Amino acid sequence: EYPAVPRLLHGLPDGGHGLPDGPLGLHGLGHHSLEDIQAADDGGMNLLDQSVIKKVPIPSKANGALPALSMNKDGLVGGVTNPGEVFCSVPGRLSLLSSTSKYKVTVGEVQRRLSPPECLNASLLGGVLRRAKSKNGGRCLRERLEKIGLNLPAGRRKAANVTLLTSLVEGEAVHLARDFGYVCETEFPAKAAAEYLCRQHSDPAELHTRKNMLLATKQICKEFADLMAQDRSPLGNSRPSLILEPGVQSCLTHFSLITHGFGGPAICAALTAFQNYLVESLKGLDKMFLNSTGNGHAAADSKAAEKEAKHRK
Amino acid sequence: EYPAVPRLLHGLPDGGHGLPDGPLGLHGLGHHSLEDIQAADDGGMNLLDQSVIKKVPIPSKANGALPALSMNKDGLVGGVTNPGEVFCSVPGRLSLLSSTSKYKVTVGEVQRRLSPPECLNASLLGGVLRRAKSKNGGRCLRERLEKIGLNLPAGRRKAANVTLLTSLVEGEAVHLARDFGYVCETEFPAKAAAEYLCRQHSDPAELHTRKNMLLATKQICKEFADLMAQDRSPLGNSRPSLILEPGVQSCLTHFSLITHGFGGPAICAALTAFQNYLVESLKGLDKMFLNSTGNGHAAADSKAAEKEAKHRK
Repeated sequence: EYPAVPRLLHGLPDGGHGLPDGPLGLHGLGHHSLEDIQAADDGGMNLLDQSVIKKVPIPSKANGALPALSMNKDGLVGGVTNPGEVFCSVPGRLSLLSSTSKYKVTVGEVQRRLSPPECLNASLLGGVLRRAKSKNGGRCLRERLEKIGLNLPAGRRKAANVTLLTSLVEGEAVHLARDFGYVCETEFPAKAAAEYLCRQHSDPAELHTRKNMLLATKQICKEFADLMAQDRSPLGNSRPSLILEPGVQSCLTHFSLITHGFGGPAICAALTAFQNYLVESLKGLDKMFLNSTGNGHAAADSKAAEKEAKHRK
Repeated sequence: EYPAVPRLLHGLPDGGHGLPDGPLGLHGLGHHSLEDIQAADDGGMNLLDQSVIKKVPIPSKANGALPALSMNKDGLVGGVTNPGEVFCSVPGRLSLLSSTSKYKVTVGEVQRRLSPPECLNASLLGGVLRRAKSKNGGRCLRERLEKIGLNLPAGRRKAANVTLLTSLVEGEAVHLARDFGYVCETEFPAKAAAEYLCRQHSDPAELHTRKNMLLATKQICKEFADLMAQDRSPLGNSRPSLILEPGVQSCLTHFSLITHGFGGPAICAALTAFQNYLVESLKGLDKMFLNSTGNGHAAADSKAAEKEAKHRK
């Protein structure tokens, strides 16, 4: 019932900020660590293997550039060759009892989480991938990352703020947005809201103006929702074609990267509730027209208004 | 920066559906149990004490009515006396490492989760309250519920579909909505979206119409957001006064109960992104007016349009 989530592996043209300018000292890797692992993940357990944040000997070059921290042309860290490959499966954080969802996390997704704008550090990535659960999760994670060309970047990088959304992997974020869409579509009281607000604006002299305003809103809202539907931010493992201009797409990609695919679909979900409210409001107005004129005038008026709206497009 | 979440303990006038009509056999409690506990909560662990869904001897009455399953006048199950009391603290599902959030769950919240429209059964409630983690969590939960007047209702009640939102307690649901609001406010590319869509509708002959449409949308959207802001669905532990008519409030309460406080604030969060897009669109149009006329006409036009918009209110 919900359209398949658009997928595209497309980098951020404005990436590359957030890396330290000068050479990075080896001690850099220890900066976040203590604070990050002192508290425990997931209800009191603290099994995160500290090795995940141990210092990694990085081969130094004459000019001080660190190959492990270099950005590729897409603004992503690391020299990943197979972004569509599954890196690991992560148990859902929001699953209940009988629904033991596991979400596949691709190499590309891990690369995105380590890259701007999020710039997760080792501890946070371990938390996102729920490595705190297994005893050797930390060391294993680091080794596996190195194997696929992702040495964990470190140092004082400008990272995005950690929110509750940070802890979700893309698969679960998209799932959550879809569930939010489901409740917005099936449970939001669009009709009750429309009837209530209709009663607040029932001056017969303004009914026609109000109808035009609602039609205008419907159209402007649809334009916006259509734009969001054309978003082809990188997500999961597929590489669909770009639809939008690279400029606006890169901005939508930034938003998607911050929310791991939740933001766009969640905004569309909420707009569904608003759009249903608009439809119900227009229905309510038509009823009021009928009641106020008692003849076929309302239908004619409705047709005229629709024609007007079509003309605008 | 975000307004405090409105709180109110207010029942559903249309509650009371979803209970079996006839007397409930004792075997009823076993119905969901096997299916619900076969799979494991939270990444492979299955420590849920089965006692949580054991048959409870229910005192039978001559007429077959079950006091434990009766609804009070607010459409809530049970004879709870102290809904504001803290029932337990639940570790956040979406916390990462250093942020070990615990959310207080009130007796009223537990009562809401067991009542329509959600009608959680014992297993699901145990999952929501994360009792699977402690060894005697299940039995302990049942005993504590009985102590506060909440024998777990059972039988084939019409319950809401389980979604990822189901697993959140109200505190975390509200926290998640707030974080979503934060990213919508700070990270959504409203200006880039506005500039892009402005370019698609740059016919000078239609600029004025478009401006009026955007102003109309802004107003209709604000009305809707204002309505949502007056929602006083029960949440947490406080009882603020009702603002809206009981009819529309009860519908908003239904939506809030299905999403445990996430739905309303999340819709408002998404509308923030849309409203910022509208503001940026209007700014972009004003620039286009300036460019097309090259004199003070744009400013005058802007003033006139604003006046018009004010007049509508």
